[in-house]
Amino acid sequence: MREQLRATSTISLATVEPSATPGFDGGKKQGEKALADGAKELATLQEQLFAESRFGGTRSILVVLQAMDTAGKGGAVRHAFAGADPAGIHSVAFKAPTDEEKRHDFLWRIRPHLPGPGYIGVFDRSHYEDVLIHRVHGFSTPEAIEERYGIINDFEAEVEAAGTTIIKVMLHISSAEQKSRLAERLERPDKHWKFSLGDLEERSFWTAYQEAYEIAIRRTSTTLAPWYVVPANHKWYARLAVQNLVLEELRAMDLQWPVANFDVEEAKARLDAS
Amino acid sequence: MREQLRATSTISLATVEPSATPGFDGGKKQGEKALADGAKELATLQEQLFAESRFGGTRSILVVLQAMDTAGKGGAVRHAFAGADPAGIHSVAFKAPTDEEKRHDFLWRIRPHLPGPGYIGVFDRSHYEDVLIHRVHGFSTPEAIEERYGIINDFEAEVEAAGTTIIKVMLHISSAEQKSRLAERLERPDKHWKFSLGDLEERSFWTAYQEAYEIAIRRTSTTLAPWYVVPANHKWYARLAVQNLVLEELRAMDLQWPVANFDVEEAKARLDAS
Repeated sequence: MREQLRATSTISLATVEPSATPGFDGGKKQGEKALADGAKELATLQEQLFAESRFGGTRSILVVLQAMDTAGKGGAVRHAFAGADPAGIHSVAFKAPTDEEKRHDFLWRIRPHLPGPGYIGVFDRSHYEDVLIHRVHGFSTPEAIEERYGIINDFEAEVEAAGTTIIKVMLHISSAEQKSRLAERLERPDKHWKFSLGDLEERSFWTAYQEAYEIAIRRTSTTLAPWYVVPANHKWYARLAVQNLVLEELRAMDLQWPVANFDVEEAKARLDAS
Repeated sequence: MREQLRATSTISLATVEPSATPGFDGGKKQGEKALADGAKELATLQEQLFAESRFGGTRSILVVLQAMDTAGKGGAVRHAFAGADPAGIHSVAFKAPTDEEKRHDFLWRIRPHLPGPGYIGVFDRSHYEDVLIHRVHGFSTPEAIEERYGIINDFEAEVEAAGTTIIKVMLHISSAEQKSRLAERLERPDKHWKFSLGDLEERSFWTAYQEAYEIAIRRTSTTLAPWYVVPANHKWYARLAVQNLVLEELRAMDLQWPVANFDVEEAKARLDAS
């Protein structure tokens, strides 16, 4: 699905249909079946990536997830990586920065969470908040935000050079879909905790956010670290798409089980005698 | 299973049968069914624990896993927490300490990984290595190790007081079972990466390790932070037991969905108008 979902430097978000299912012909039932099949392959490839790192490999994967509220970032992570070893997944949710974090440059709190060799890192929100919410609410000057696109591209090039494949995903829902999901949270007492009045406040900036996303994606969708805009009105599709984007990168890595760096027959003999 | 598995200050490891399945009457098939059922309940309770923390709750859970090589720590984590939201599980595998870690006291590298409010932390190996491998190989003096039992008990009491329920689990396999599992790793090229000659070296210290575990468990199985010795020759049972120990603590927390701290009807009206 990489080809269908990759964002260009001229992407117009308004032309991406949030209910579409690019690169997948079936419906929900077939999508869930494909997700379950993909889980097994992903588990094996993730183990191979991890195994490689134990023998000197430096490769890793970083998935950056950005989206409007209710778009399903959490569910996408949970379902896309179901079956994978959680010990090999390093998932971080970036909240509003603390006072200490605000005193440092915006990448300061990000760097410690970059995935080590063999790991799949997942950022639920990320350094992109500093060009998204900052732009919408004017938390930073236009000049500072302008400068950050370049800083981000340099940062991500550095991360790629260190062996990390970056997959940046915007889950793209419609305003009507968000309304219906927020309504569901208000209907169900077991969902009230996920709701805050701030969500309604943020919703009123919908257009400004779409604009901020569009500009950020245009400016930072590089060859090395492209953005993928994933239609997410159908949760099953968004989950499958995230899983597929990761699978396609893992497959392209041509991962192999490491070859034993000891004499297997001698080890068997020693074990027998123990 | 808490009652059946809890270790006392006079426990004798030699009397714990590694192939037993205390507290569970069925076999493998029933065990796997029970594990799948438990996964759903665990997912809900974990979400409630997380939700609570968003409304000021400070409670969390820490699972400390210790075991001989091949006992199945990784698999136990993966299967016991299948279905739970990985974003709410903070799993850390402690390896041999780095040079920098060695320059600090043995809890220095542990503290940053204590679970925050709402999280379930999982330690795959832990601060107990400093009274286990250190005792077996004489990396520390007997006096230093003696002192550490008390330091650990104080540390864990402090962690409990901060709102973290500690569940300490030793997965208990037999020497024959380890031999058969190591043999399987040597037979299968896709398992070679998990094997090292050091595993055979460590295996030769089996009795000394059992002794070190027994003493550590006796000295640090407190009312607040008890040890559970989980027979682990049957992988399906070990996974079910770990899941059950966590489930029993979560149930005892009497978790509830947080009550909305906003006017739900007013929010609905505002959403309708948006």
